[in-house]
Amino acid sequence: MSKESSWLDISADSHFSLKNIPFGIISTSSNTSKRVATAISNYAFDVGTFCLSSNAKFSFVPDTKVFASSTLNAFAALGPEARSEVRQYIQKLFCNDSITAKILRDDKSLLEKVLIPFKEVTMHLPFQIGDYTDFYVGLHHAMNCGRLMRGPGQELQANYKHLPVGYHGRASSVVVSGTPITRPSGQIRPPDSDGPVFSACRRLDFELELGCFVARGNTMGKPVRLGEAKNHLFGVVLLNDWSARDIQTWEMVPLGPFNAKNFGTSISPWVVTTEALEPFLVPGLESERHLLAYLKGESEGKVPEIALEVQLKS
Amino acid sequence: MSKESSWLDISADSHFSLKNIPFGIISTSSNTSKRVATAISNYAFDVGTFCLSSNAKFSFVPDTKVFASSTLNAFAALGPEARSEVRQYIQKLFCNDSITAKILRDDKSLLEKVLIPFKEVTMHLPFQIGDYTDFYVGLHHAMNCGRLMRGPGQELQANYKHLPVGYHGRASSVVVSGTPITRPSGQIRPPDSDGPVFSACRRLDFELELGCFVARGNTMGKPVRLGEAKNHLFGVVLLNDWSARDIQTWEMVPLGPFNAKNFGTSISPWVVTTEALEPFLVPGLESERHLLAYLKGESEGKVPEIALEVQLKS
Repeated sequence: MSKESSWLDISADSHFSLKNIPFGIISTSSNTSKRVATAISNYAFDVGTFCLSSNAKFSFVPDTKVFASSTLNAFAALGPEARSEVRQYIQKLFCNDSITAKILRDDKSLLEKVLIPFKEVTMHLPFQIGDYTDFYVGLHHAMNCGRLMRGPGQELQANYKHLPVGYHGRASSVVVSGTPITRPSGQIRPPDSDGPVFSACRRLDFELELGCFVARGNTMGKPVRLGEAKNHLFGVVLLNDWSARDIQTWEMVPLGPFNAKNFGTSISPWVVTTEALEPFLVPGLESERHLLAYLKGESEGKVPEIALEVQLKS
Repeated sequence: MSKESSWLDISADSHFSLKNIPFGIISTSSNTSKRVATAISNYAFDVGTFCLSSNAKFSFVPDTKVFASSTLNAFAALGPEARSEVRQYIQKLFCNDSITAKILRDDKSLLEKVLIPFKEVTMHLPFQIGDYTDFYVGLHHAMNCGRLMRGPGQELQANYKHLPVGYHGRASSVVVSGTPITRPSGQIRPPDSDGPVFSACRRLDFELELGCFVARGNTMGKPVRLGEAKNHLFGVVLLNDWSARDIQTWEMVPLGPFNAKNFGTSISPWVVTTEALEPFLVPGLESERHLLAYLKGESEGKVPEIALEVQLKS
């Protein structure tokens, strides 16, 4: 669906065309209850209020109350069928050629209620996050970090190319983009000091990462096979893994990063679904090693190609 | 309060005298709703049902619905005043010399409803756990682990005696004692092998630890001073930090333990309050190092003396 297929004005360079349809949690000054929304052009489309005000029904969504929820957890737990169905319905709602579009386009009072300019909307953390795992999956990042810590020639540890190396981060300090982050204080060991000192972090850093929401759990003790993994994923956000490098260097041996990462992790508010990323799947980096069988799935080697960019505002 | 001070038969060696009064979450076959209870002698005292059935009122508990909750979170968040008040009230309920005791002792139908033999009770996870942090605080344990990993003379890393070394564990696999734990599979690197193999864990281990519930959060970016820390703690449980040693050895460099610990962490169901531990506070180990000021609190050096013991059933 290109620009001309919607009755809504969507500029050609919008992040939020009908092909995207991400999900997020909004509130407004006139309705402070958090609810599910999507982003289209320069608007939040209030899915929660729309479902309460219309007769929208979905085969894979037993109760549209999931859209009146303060997080995406309940909706996301319904799985990929529900997510696809709702995305496709919303695409039709905004599509010129669909009879579904009449429900919204021709009802001015409904339209005014549920199509809200971004500037009038407050965005919230999209999920209640049960656990947060940080995987060391960026090869170039791992090479850079390894060079800083262990010097050239010993960048990667022996396990790196055999398994996804990761650790748990602090779930409770994952916040939505725009939330102020306080520069942390903690123990650092300056090069000219005999022992550690307590100090505000002097080497605050950022890491541009992709955050992925696992929306469906598994029974404890029953692994999710790689081929089934995609049925457990909901979508992705941008993630800033704020890092206090001087605190990290001193504290992380032998159990990994801790307070150096605990003070805050920012994520973007709109969760881009795995369906929206499908057209961008490309073969991944060739693995130099023989991967163990349990790490080979049907989609082996296919990863979404996403160009990420950082701009610093000082 | 000794054995003779209660109208209930409490044996002298009971874990659950009136001095303990731990809190937990129960359900029964006749009432499958989870609710708050305490343990006395060989009984669960159903605090949730008692409060619904009586006029019990508390200055520091605005709404006794917190006891009808499926977790201790809401009650615990009320802080130490509420916890102390409720403990003391329950102690009076069961005390021979208190007029409060009549409410329960003299009401046979109420008594039958709220005093439930342990064997009729199902225990549940006491808290919804937002984050789970494992601190490497046992000096002898750290010495043992360090000796195994790095050899004698290099047991402790440089940071060990300066700060609490810790890492995040998986919150979603903390389960109540008795929940079956599945032996995990994962990558291990046998000594006679060139590379890793996928295998069931061959070196499954346990770690006897004390789990501590932090029941009140802080505003992000505002530290909790050491002197205020006790107002944030609720109580302790026994904890088995199940460990897959062969998986751990291979995976944990450089980011710490991960799947080797993720498959399950067992905790005891009754949370023993910080008040119940107060009579057992003793001076802690003398620190050989000069601690930084932010780690010195008013209770510095005072720790509960608790003898912990493991029995293996094979």
